[in-house]
Amino acid sequence: MASPEIDTLTQALSRLPGLGPRSARRAVLHLVKRRETALDPLLRALEAVAEKLATCSICGNVDTTDPCGICSDTRRDSRSICVVEEVADLWALDRSRLFPGRFHVLGGRLSALDGVRPEDLTIDALLRRIEAGGIDEIVLAMNATLEGQTTSHYIAERIEAFPVRVTQLAHGLPVGGELDYLDEGTLAQALRARRPVA
Amino acid sequence: MASPEIDTLTQALSRLPGLGPRSARRAVLHLVKRRETALDPLLRALEAVAEKLATCSICGNVDTTDPCGICSDTRRDSRSICVVEEVADLWALDRSRLFPGRFHVLGGRLSALDGVRPEDLTIDALLRRIEAGGIDEIVLAMNATLEGQTTSHYIAERIEAFPVRVTQLAHGLPVGGELDYLDEGTLAQALRARRPVA
Ligand SMILES: [Zn+2]
Ligand SMILES: [Zn+2]
Repeated sequence: MASPEIDTLTQALSRLPGLGPRSARRAVLHLVKRRETALDPLLRALEAVAEKLATCSICGNVDTTDPCGICSDTRRDSRSICVVEEVADLWALDRSRLFPGRFHVLGGRLSALDGVRPEDLTIDALLRRIEAGGIDEIVLAMNATLEGQTTSHYIAERIEAFPVRVTQLAHGLPVGGELDYLDEGTLAQALRARRPVA
Repeated sequence: MASPEIDTLTQALSRLPGLGPRSARRAVLHLVKRRETALDPLLRALEAVAEKLATCSICGNVDTTDPCGICSDTRRDSRSICVVEEVADLWALDRSRLFPGRFHVLGGRLSALDGVRPEDLTIDALLRRIEAGGIDEIVLAMNATLEGQTTSHYIAERIEAFPVRVTQLAHGLPVGGELDYLDEGTLAQALRARRPVA
């Protein structure tokens, strides 16, 4: 019954993560009832992003500038690079403000199952960044999955020849994690990596 | 850390109902990673709606045409008008496909507390539609709240002089409603309006 334009907008919104058909309809209603305060600002915001959207030619981040805001931020430590699987991981780590260096987005993880080989990831670009010099540390921040760890080991081996420190995120109990709710893999890893009490 | 454009988009999305800051960030990431399949379609859909957005001069519906799709649909029964408080109510009833007639959006409900008086609603426009003739029934579909029912009674009185049937939505147990979870008001209404078992 709704107009084709409104239907199309509802469908486009319902494909966003976290918005089903029902909440998309509520969002559309919200937008059409608030043209000046909701619809027009969202439209302008989307236009601005769409106009400038770029993949950073250095790190693979998605941003509205190339190089991205992180790569061009001179206050950041250019001597350490945190390697992540996806842009989502970069954004999550960046949001935490815990890592003061720069990033490198692989664009995925090695996977025999999905047929993802080293040349499908940006590993060569990472090696070129290291070769160019000025890098002290590579932090491997792959997911704690089998494929993530395979990727991590593969990259660590490829970097071995370079005079950089290679580290990876610690695995173990998540903060607030209760032992009896954790999977065996996490428990095993936490036990293996146990440290003397300070 | 994100660019101003991406921040602005995240904020605009986070103001939609059902999307908090966290899901707005995920939605933005989804959009910027899928320019052709997500961002551009959403942008075009918003543009199309923004370009044509109109409030129906007959019923107050929000649509991309004036008169709206419902008022200009000749297959609908033009002899009955369902009066609702808000556009959201019209959309909900229209989606149910249970009402074959047309609508009238009041734009709110009478409220001493919020200072909403009869002249703040589209009651005069409703009376003009009735005066113009060709209407058999007015269905009052206000919310089952004190203010909704006050509005309902007020409109019913204003319409009394016209030769139209005035009805209102039945109140009672919601389908699937369990007695011991219902509030007293609903229970009282359901008891008052009890009917002989068929
Ligand atoms: Zn970058
Ligand atoms: Zn209309």
